[in-house]
Amino acid sequence: MTDVTNTEWSEIEKKVAQDAFEKAYERETHALIGEVRSQANAIKEIHDMWRLHDFLSARRHEMDGKYDYSYSVLIFVFAKLIQQGWLHIEELDGVSKDKLTKISALARTI
Amino acid sequence: MTDVTNTEWSEIEKKVAQDAFEKAYERETHALIGEVRSQANAIKEIHDMWRLHDFLSARRHEMDGKYDYSYSVLIFVFAKLIQQGWLHIEELDGVSKDKLTKISALARTI
Repeated sequence: MTDVTNTEWSEIEKKVAQDAFEKAYERETHALIGEVRSQANAIKEIHDMWRLHDFLSARRHEMDGKYDYSYSVLIFVFAKLIQQGWLHIEELDGVSKDKLTKISALARTI
Repeated sequence: MTDVTNTEWSEIEKKVAQDAFEKAYERETHALIGEVRSQANAIKEIHDMWRLHDFLSARRHEMDGKYDYSYSVLIFVFAKLIQQGWLHIEELDGVSKDKLTKISALARTI
């Protein structure tokens, strides 16, 4: 895995990566806010409210772990975001072919 | 405190206590659901969502601790519910004067 975690990012790649990262984050956040509103408005009894609480606990934990903008793990982060549909590989245009190949391959396996 | 925690409850008192307990629980639950809906609908960004999560964590912990229907602690439970406005002392009509005096006194001190 050394060749994945030790990947160097050029300044242009960093700009593309940052924009893509933010785009995915905004998309997922936006979807999550919509889901929370919808669940909150559907609350009928206290059990539904604690289910919303459990849902938020899980998503917060997941989001905190997933959105790690460190260049050493960015290949994995993008693979995950693509696999989950928050990012499209085309949005990483400008990143080296080598990295894109790794990201695509990882997105199919994780 | 022995005279408070060892208090005996007659069958009639138990019925009154149970009804009052449920009434307070329903009131607080109802208010909480309204508050959660309102906070959820006001979410603008992810920070607001995690604040709602923190709010739910705190309230769940508080509710779990507060609504303990054990006769050994019921005097304290009712005192707390009255102090917080979820129950009125008149709704415990049928409970002995001695217990009501203890509940009222505790409600002013806790």
